Amino acid sequence: MHIEVHTHALLDELHKLASFSACPEPVPAVTRVVFTREDQEARTWLTERFEAAGLAVRADAIGNTFARWAPPGCDATAPAIGTGSHADAIPHAGMYDGTVGVLGGLEAVRALQRAGHTPARPIDVVLFTSEEPTRFGLGCTGSRTLCGNLAPDTLAGLRDEQGVSFDEARQSAGFSGAISDVPLPPSAYAGFVELHIEQGPTLEQDGVDLGVVTAIAAPAAARFVVEGQGGHAGGVLMPDRHDALCAAAELTLAIERLAQASPSPDCVATVGELAVHPGAVNSIPSRTELSLDLRDIDHDNRDAVLADIQQAARDIAQRRGVTMKGRVLNADAPARCDAAVISALKQAAQDAGYSHRTMVSRAYHDSLFMAGRFPTGMLFIPCRNGVSHRPDEFVEPDHLEAGVATLARTLALLSA
Amino acid sequence: MHIEVHTHALLDELHKLASFSACPEPVPAVTRVVFTREDQEARTWLTERFEAAGLAVRADAIGNTFARWAPPGCDATAPAIGTGSHADAIPHAGMYDGTVGVLGGLEAVRALQRAGHTPARPIDVVLFTSEEPTRFGLGCTGSRTLCGNLAPDTLAGLRDEQGVSFDEARQSAGFSGAISDVPLPPSAYAGFVELHIEQGPTLEQDGVDLGVVTAIAAPAAARFVVEGQGGHAGGVLMPDRHDALCAAAELTLAIERLAQASPSPDCVATVGELAVHPGAVNSIPSRTELSLDLRDIDHDNRDAVLADIQQAARDIAQRRGVTMKGRVLNADAPARCDAAVISALKQAAQDAGYSHRTMVSRAYHDSLFMAGRFPTGMLFIPCRNGVSHRPDEFVEPDHLEAGVATLARTLALLSA
Repeated sequence: MHIEVHTHALLDELHKLASFSACPEPVPAVTRVVFTREDQEARTWLTERFEAAGLAVRADAIGNTFARWAPPGCDATAPAIGTGSHADAIPHAGMYDGTVGVLGGLEAVRALQRAGHTPARPIDVVLFTSEEPTRFGLGCTGSRTLCGNLAPDTLAGLRDEQGVSFDEARQSAGFSGAISDVPLPPSAYAGFVELHIEQGPTLEQDGVDLGVVTAIAAPAAARFVVEGQGGHAGGVLMPDRHDALCAAAELTLAIERLAQASPSPDCVATVGELAVHPGAVNSIPSRTELSLDLRDIDHDNRDAVLADIQQAARDIAQRRGVTMKGRVLNADAPARCDAAVISALKQAAQDAGYSHRTMVSRAYHDSLFMAGRFPTGMLFIPCRNGVSHRPDEFVEPDHLEAGVATLARTLALLSA
Repeated sequence: MHIEVHTHALLDELHKLASFSACPEPVPAVTRVVFTREDQEARTWLTERFEAAGLAVRADAIGNTFARWAPPGCDATAPAIGTGSHADAIPHAGMYDGTVGVLGGLEAVRALQRAGHTPARPIDVVLFTSEEPTRFGLGCTGSRTLCGNLAPDTLAGLRDEQGVSFDEARQSAGFSGAISDVPLPPSAYAGFVELHIEQGPTLEQDGVDLGVVTAIAAPAAARFVVEGQGGHAGGVLMPDRHDALCAAAELTLAIERLAQASPSPDCVATVGELAVHPGAVNSIPSRTELSLDLRDIDHDNRDAVLADIQQAARDIAQRRGVTMKGRVLNADAPARCDAAVISALKQAAQDAGYSHRTMVSRAYHDSLFMAGRFPTGMLFIPCRNGVSHRPDEFVEPDHLEAGVATLARTLALLSA
């Protein structure tokens, strides 16, 4: 099979998609939040691109969009093969995160069409709704709901900072119908593959063209509130203090130490936010609030570390005479990729002549949830300096081509 | 001399002053930052109160305000006796810090007027500009400049977080004229007394009505900026991290430990502010900035602890592969109070029949700088649980009365 990727046309499409942004200047800073005008314009334009390639486009009640290629000769009733990703973007992001999987998926299908390939089963290019947690505080709302991981009522009731519910927002964006119809049965897809940038530096550093993902880490997110005792910085002697920031500092270091000491080398823990009240130079902090983001490939290990962190918080609180309340916001299960999909990806990379290696994804993706319901795999391409979620996110055209060519071959193998 | 304090009227005035607040709810949380609308409104209202008592009000180029009582029979050209304090307040503060010295000073003058006392020299009630460091990062800017401890150009160039200079801010607040005219000659005051809440628990714990201050601790203030390496919370393994918040947490705990271990029991150290960039749940902190407030009666010990903290910062930075830049903003010398003023305070307390004892001030005050230029003393009254810089700061009316009555008698003794 001769696979020819039209990389320059694909890059033109990526640039065009990047122009649907709430902050297009300086190009290509992309801000595209779910169900905003930019998101709607991007969806309309993507639908036109899908239809121009002869795909039949359907959107579900929350905007997950399925562009189906089922040419004469394929069994249109058989479980399909899916590929795809998301097109929403956090504020001031780059132009490759997610979009490479959507437009790259479309280009892979077009390459198969040009190669004269006839799949035995349909191939869907899927556009997931709101992978990013920007607006409603929860990531992957589209894929979570599609895979039955998020109750329709819970989804409908999520609210943004302006108090607009997800249900209201999706309806204003033109998506109606029952959210309870969104989940798909396991028979919907015989396989799913997501092409994505690595969002880390390892492929580039080691000069490897492609990463075949074997497992996807899942984050647990928690928030700790520490209540101590404030006072004048000059007025309270050291032994009489119950400083909420010192307690938070101790918890921050305990979190770091517990992740470092974890038997799993993939375990990472981050305190990314720490707010201090009242926050004055000469006031002893009375209250602090900190976030925890904890990830691991190993579900049991991650939950064990989370339990250790909670225990550390209790110990610190007791010793320091403060209160520490921890609330777990979410604790999704990590996912293993499907052996058959991994095999197909390796075979395709080898056939196409690209260097590749297996790796785990420490960032999370719609595939985390797809993997719970369908045989799923992911294909990573390098991004410059591992940078993502920033305007200077960049992918070498050669790597883009390698990813799409390998994705096309993988779809051919899986749909045979 | 019969001194009668109108305590309820004074409490009404303290409550009224508390209402000039950027966060009036729940009453009485006071936020009144220098040269804001609330600060201006408070100044206008205080000027009216001063004038209602027949005092002549003058403000200098930076808003230090002098309300002079020079009744017929006094030598209007003689060095005056001053009393007073500040009326600005850190975010979410209480209603007694500073204000007791300003309105209590006014009430002491009114009590002397009611008693038919004629001072031999003028008595000034002084309102100092920005004792709190909230806006420009440096405390006591008014008294420092007044006493020649802060160069006019340095003061003018201080900037707030929005980049507004002190010079711009004072002009927008209606204070013009040359800052170089602010310093007063040593002959301006023959004595100065500041009435203040203790901001610590010892007087209340021991059931003593009044504290006569013999020495004022001085703070050293510093700011540390930590530059680490940011990244996606899922993308960078623990051993590869240079987390700016973990480094700041370690420094915070080192500061606490060094103050605790100091040979001086009066040594206190506080990290009251800690800012995290970029401050996102799923981003490794790339930069943090923290404040240090370090105080001691013992000048040498305080500077030794400061040096230890700076060494700890260097060690942490090296071990963690981050940079930590510490900048000492000020390291004022502690002050001794004037023997004659101390005597007058003791005599007045005894005449009025209140229990009293000598003590040191661990909090610092405008009197720290006044003491460098004028014979200065301070009078402390208990505050509930030693709490200050919090909305629940509270003073028993009886203690307020004791403080004002003793201040009035002290002013009478000093102005005789």
